[in-house]
Amino acid sequence: MEVNKFITLTTDFGLVDHYVSEMKAAILSISPNARIVDITHNISKFDIRMGAFILSSALNYFPKGTIHVAVVDPGVGSCRRPLLIETKKDFFIGPDNGLLVLAAEKQGIKNVYELTNINLMLNKVSNTFHGRDIFAPAAAYLLNGVTPKAFGPKIDKIKKPIFANVIKTNKTLIGQVIHVDDFGNIITNMNLDKSLLDLYGKMLKVKLSPSEFLIKFCKTYSEVKLGELLVIIGSHGFLEISANQKNAGKMLNIQPGAEIVIEISR
Amino acid sequence: MEVNKFITLTTDFGLVDHYVSEMKAAILSISPNARIVDITHNISKFDIRMGAFILSSALNYFPKGTIHVAVVDPGVGSCRRPLLIETKKDFFIGPDNGLLVLAAEKQGIKNVYELTNINLMLNKVSNTFHGRDIFAPAAAYLLNGVTPKAFGPKIDKIKKPIFANVIKTNKTLIGQVIHVDDFGNIITNMNLDKSLLDLYGKMLKVKLSPSEFLIKFCKTYSEVKLGELLVIIGSHGFLEISANQKNAGKMLNIQPGAEIVIEISR
Amino acid sequence: MEVNKFITLTTDFGLVDHYVSEMKAAILSISPNARIVDITHNISKFDIRMGAFILSSALNYFPKGTIHVAVVDPGVGSCRRPLLIETKKDFFIGPDNGLLVLAAEKQGIKNVYELTNINLMLNKVSNTFHGRDIFAPAAAYLLNGVTPKAFGPKIDKIKKPIFANVIKTNKTLIGQVIHVDDFGNIITNMNLDKSLLDLYGKMLKVKLSPSEFLIKFCKTYSEVKLGELLVIIGSHGFLEISANQKNAGKMLNIQPGAEIVIEISR
Repeated sequence: MEVNKFITLTTDFGLVDHYVSEMKAAILSISPNARIVDITHNISKFDIRMGAFILSSALNYFPKGTIHVAVVDPGVGSCRRPLLIETKKDFFIGPDNGLLVLAAEKQGIKNVYELTNINLMLNKVSNTFHGRDIFAPAAAYLLNGVTPKAFGPKIDKIKKPIFANVIKTNKTLIGQVIHVDDFGNIITNMNLDKSLLDLYGKMLKVKLSPSEFLIKFCKTYSEVKLGELLVIIGSHGFLEISANQKNAGKMLNIQPGAEIVIEISR
Repeated sequence: MEVNKFITLTTDFGLVDHYVSEMKAAILSISPNARIVDITHNISKFDIRMGAFILSSALNYFPKGTIHVAVVDPGVGSCRRPLLIETKKDFFIGPDNGLLVLAAEKQGIKNVYELTNINLMLNKVSNTFHGRDIFAPAAAYLLNGVTPKAFGPKIDKIKKPIFANVIKTNKTLIGQVIHVDDFGNIITNMNLDKSLLDLYGKMLKVKLSPSEFLIKFCKTYSEVKLGELLVIIGSHGFLEISANQKNAGKMLNIQPGAEIVIEISR
Repeated sequence: MEVNKFITLTTDFGLVDHYVSEMKAAILSISPNARIVDITHNISKFDIRMGAFILSSALNYFPKGTIHVAVVDPGVGSCRRPLLIETKKDFFIGPDNGLLVLAAEKQGIKNVYELTNINLMLNKVSNTFHGRDIFAPAAAYLLNGVTPKAFGPKIDKIKKPIFANVIKTNKTLIGQVIHVDDFGNIITNMNLDKSLLDLYGKMLKVKLSPSEFLIKFCKTYSEVKLGELLVIIGSHGFLEISANQKNAGKMLNIQPGAEIVIEISR
């Protein structure tokens, strides 16, 4: 499979310091024609689960062969392995701590390599910044045409992040809040299920501990009044609790990880 | 008129989530050589007036034929129309809610089209993210050479945002604060008027309810002491109330929309 | 020396307003193939010392001939001079207030020019936004092949930012906190000194007024427990006080400029 010219970056480095620009400098020094697209640098510090969710949400629309570099790396400098994952669509580069797996599995994993070839790293590898010294150069060399197997040995087992499963009974869906976005949309891990489509327009009983709400299941935000809560299928197919032009996350004081129970009995 | 290779983005999506990167992915999948420039993604959520002001302020300096995509879209999924506006200089793509008009009118509107051609949208259009599914692809296809009229029918009437007018008498200018920027500069809707030039260096009486101030009308910040207020013509020709190396907006606790009265009697 | 196609930007403009995009527009209008890389736009307002530190930290990894534009410019519109500095590796453009010197001296300064040629500025130069009207165009014309001496006369003396020196005795290192990054890493001005290498693994007495701490000198964050403090050599070779997956800056309530004393007696 061929790479294209795009490299994406997903980190928890923030936008105040120079760290992101150093990764870009490392890439552009090796591969000056690389086109770099930021996914986000505002993953909450060390929050691998949020990083995994954002990364897996972002990448559907990128052209085939895009190289995704992700760095949320509390174990940098320790013995956690640096990885290159080849999927049926794209490439993923980052630490072996679960960050890449959700996204990679969505596309179908073909091969996983451990990055061990020091000729494909910067000359001096620090103990604190593998994003610049190992991951960025790997992406740039891959884009330049270096074959995946040149980076190191194939490996079998990689670490997975833990996400709760959705439990479905006749009467209820039990799931988890996986992200509260900047608009305050409370994104759950519940995928749209066709058996639920006839519930559109109905009031659903939603339990978000310690409270319980009756919320309308809508197709668009404007089906409820300004500031009112609604249940909606978000742009990635997950059930979301939102409010029309208001921040539902703040209204309900909900954090990622919270349990959510929705009654679906007719 | 010909497009160039630049697409700008102005949204209220913030820089935490993956939404901006999905718009970029949609553009680059259709038009891999597009050069994307972010204007800002930090428009206050749903604040169409702020979006309109920032967009209209930003675009003077872009090369002719630039495509500006703007998304501050509280009515997404409802019946508000998606637009393509062709002006004497550039192109504007976004919702018909007033966001684009201020900027487009500054350049001179030539034609307005409603985006209805589903062949120029993503295959699956969600109810919640037209930025990715409709507006970004439209920009990419336009850049690729698709003619404006292929996107949908010409329309006549579009929605305008409401900005207060400036009232000028012999003695006073009465206007409005339209933006308080990140430096705390209080930007008004009062354009530089040549009849005011002889007031440079004078103390002006400025009423910002409930207070009144005597503030020096300066050419540069350094004409007053550190932390002192001044009146200055900003880089876009509007009168601004600033403070030398301090945040005037916080000092005076002023929000956009506030009335401002300046005495100009000699 | 030849320029490459990269221009970096370092400012205190923030990411809410349109100012950064106007600089990019000015560059791309003059030099449409320029590749622009943001270092940061979140330098604390008017903090020349932070700007100087971030700029000098960021640029090691950029390809030779990169043009760095930096704008932290409290004296804009006054008589402070606009500069172009040519070093042994790169080019620097910005105000003569100390912002550029730390970075430029690291690379070795060859020539300094004052930007006086109005043909290499925008047609209309405002009093408040030289980033857009003078510095961005200078970078673009330089990238287009204009020779440095065409921009204005050579000058000898430029302003330097003030940083404390490190004082080393047999028993102590006395230095200064120069930056607290977004992770809370407390970055000092103390460079790694080979004579200190045998202290790895030892507990060091660290005085950060008004408190004193015994902190382990580590090679990786994971050598201490979660939330525990450590002393580590950061990715640029400076001594840092960090905490394993916690914000040391907040834990110790430390600001840039604070004095730090480390006991190194064995």
